[in-house]
Amino acid sequence: MPSTNGTVAPTSSWGTIPSSDVSRRTFNPIREVLSRPVQPLATVKSSNDPISLSIGDPTVFGNFKAHPVVVDAIEAAVRSYSFNGYPPSVGVPAAREAIAKKYSHPDALLTANDVIMASGCSGAVEMAIGVLCSEGQNILLPRPGFCLYNTIAASRNIEARLYNLLADKSWEIDIAHMESLINKDTAAILINNPSNPCGSNYTKAHLKAILAVCERHKIPLISDEIYADMVFGAQVFTPTATLTATVPVLTVGGLAKQWLVPGWRLGWILVNDRNHAFEHVRQGLFALSTLINGPCAIAQAALPSIFENIPDSYLPDLNKQLETHARILETELSKAPGLEVITPQGAMYIMVKLNIEAFEDIADDADFCHKLKWEENVEILPGECFAYPGTVRLVITPPKDKLHLAAERIAAFCQRHHK
Amino acid sequence: MPSTNGTVAPTSSWGTIPSSDVSRRTFNPIREVLSRPVQPLATVKSSNDPISLSIGDPTVFGNFKAHPVVVDAIEAAVRSYSFNGYPPSVGVPAAREAIAKKYSHPDALLTANDVIMASGCSGAVEMAIGVLCSEGQNILLPRPGFCLYNTIAASRNIEARLYNLLADKSWEIDIAHMESLINKDTAAILINNPSNPCGSNYTKAHLKAILAVCERHKIPLISDEIYADMVFGAQVFTPTATLTATVPVLTVGGLAKQWLVPGWRLGWILVNDRNHAFEHVRQGLFALSTLINGPCAIAQAALPSIFENIPDSYLPDLNKQLETHARILETELSKAPGLEVITPQGAMYIMVKLNIEAFEDIADDADFCHKLKWEENVEILPGECFAYPGTVRLVITPPKDKLHLAAERIAAFCQRHHK
Repeated sequence: MPSTNGTVAPTSSWGTIPSSDVSRRTFNPIREVLSRPVQPLATVKSSNDPISLSIGDPTVFGNFKAHPVVVDAIEAAVRSYSFNGYPPSVGVPAAREAIAKKYSHPDALLTANDVIMASGCSGAVEMAIGVLCSEGQNILLPRPGFCLYNTIAASRNIEARLYNLLADKSWEIDIAHMESLINKDTAAILINNPSNPCGSNYTKAHLKAILAVCERHKIPLISDEIYADMVFGAQVFTPTATLTATVPVLTVGGLAKQWLVPGWRLGWILVNDRNHAFEHVRQGLFALSTLINGPCAIAQAALPSIFENIPDSYLPDLNKQLETHARILETELSKAPGLEVITPQGAMYIMVKLNIEAFEDIADDADFCHKLKWEENVEILPGECFAYPGTVRLVITPPKDKLHLAAERIAAFCQRHHK
Repeated sequence: MPSTNGTVAPTSSWGTIPSSDVSRRTFNPIREVLSRPVQPLATVKSSNDPISLSIGDPTVFGNFKAHPVVVDAIEAAVRSYSFNGYPPSVGVPAAREAIAKKYSHPDALLTANDVIMASGCSGAVEMAIGVLCSEGQNILLPRPGFCLYNTIAASRNIEARLYNLLADKSWEIDIAHMESLINKDTAAILINNPSNPCGSNYTKAHLKAILAVCERHKIPLISDEIYADMVFGAQVFTPTATLTATVPVLTVGGLAKQWLVPGWRLGWILVNDRNHAFEHVRQGLFALSTLINGPCAIAQAALPSIFENIPDSYLPDLNKQLETHARILETELSKAPGLEVITPQGAMYIMVKLNIEAFEDIADDADFCHKLKWEENVEILPGECFAYPGTVRLVITPPKDKLHLAAERIAAFCQRHHK
């Protein structure tokens, strides 16, 4: 039966084909929040140009741009005609070798065999959770935390148990709370350092306290270090696996953030297993890698040259630039009423606590973001995306003039709605 | 406790961490067969140079090479600095647009919204099976068939029910057998046309007979068309979805084979849903795509230019070359005792039936391949990799001189072991 718009309604005999249980459990809250229509409000709609501080993609505005070395490396790989064929499903040997060399540490030696390539750091996280946790088991995840962890766990029917991060302790983990969540079905603990959304960077002492929990309960650790080495000022980044001789650690990382090429979808897992407890897990990772045969081979092939030819000044310069951006937002937003900025120590984000009581007509973080978008055309993410209501997350990578402008608009918004 | 080779045995307190149920269910038989050590035999070991006709990668020997247009396209995408950021998880809009335009057909119209990008055709198959089938349901798969289908199904606890292909009917499906496998838990039927490993290409009439089964039982179809348009001589390839106005079809494809770049890992799903039965399935595909955020954006960005600039002569030339290769193997192997070659109609493979009774000391297809490797240093795959014992599969893409040499060695081997 043709409908008015020329399409055809389903014949009753077919009806609607159901989608699978897995796909129905796969839910990404950021996507959902960003696709919510902005409901008309009684207040005046902004005629400002839009500014988005919502998505953690540093390349959007063109101010953070891949180094020419990175682009030259992939061009050479393409031109060689040597990487058009299937890579081994665990990865191009030269890429695994280069990663092992770069991330090997006297206290956590790595060889090419300890590296598994993945389709982005998202793919690496999916494989790491997928290899350690079975349906019906549970995994400990950070709150606030990157929502993909929860999406992956839900997709696989793995229970996500959320441990608290302490905003007033630079987002350190509430160790006692973390430990209280462990039971016989706990298959893994996941940490994210430096953190999205917190912009925190843990001390060695704190990382050791986390590892001690793993040790006490004999639970392996997944350490998401996609923001490895991206820290500000006097902060020092420590790879978690270098602090333990016994706890088996899957470290996940990728090119996305530090090399400013998230679109390449190039991630990896480092199997840190000085205690030889991961024999089955290694085999499991090899097996899982055969499902999609690894990420794009030409992007993999670019890795050795990128690591070798990037100037020593690249990373310090990038971090300095990121810190400048973070400080602009921190300084400006600290002046706005009703906001409490938590000083970021690394990564690309700044978390802000909302004093909801101090506002006249803001119900919660989602309401704050919704009204801010309507009235000021500034898009930021509510804490609900990170299972942490009462906060908002801002991305610090847009150009400085946009950050100033966004901060001004947010301040005006807070002023206007403040009691 | 340090062992003799300097490594450390697991401390008893940690033991061995188990890998997940999913990873233990994920088993790829081709990988397993190829990694079996060649056991010493009583016969003389070959001192020949090795020839591998085992892996379906046309780029290995350098005779089948990506067209310069393909490499220019990706180089331009890299140089533009415009595709380093996150693509939408369903794909780069221009790539989805280009695919929709290329594969749209008057009888199966497609728009960009009907295209979902995936990490290789393997990733596309994984998403297609993953969105239609839930744990405990079943899917009908071809026997012989590409083993990844079974690997994916097993990984997800979906029962694989194998329908027979008929070797003496150019590998057409035994429709009655297929239909007999259907029960209330059958969530999808998957076909592969042109076929790996069979090298077959179905007629319109046969495809319609398959669609009629779907229609009778209201079961959606997955049509793996990674070898679309790769057919020989007077053969005509027909996209399955163009033959039905009612059966919902997920067509999977990719750049790997026709454009000779399997390493790029660029695949896609076409949602053919003229009957509007796939509303939930579409949402499910969008959800699943958020798990790894799609394939490499620069490879996606190269697509429009590849499709636009590839010369009209490219595909006919490629098919002619492939057919020449197929005929060499067919002609040469037909002379060998104990072998029955089934004429290939497309794709990159040739299937050969073994008359095991005719051999003195060959137990089965695995034994045939094992002894052939030991005595002649030719590697081919036993039918057991495709759930079809009693046959072997040869890849037709190595250079012609290698094909002649391989065929000579196989003939000598058959002669030697023939009764």
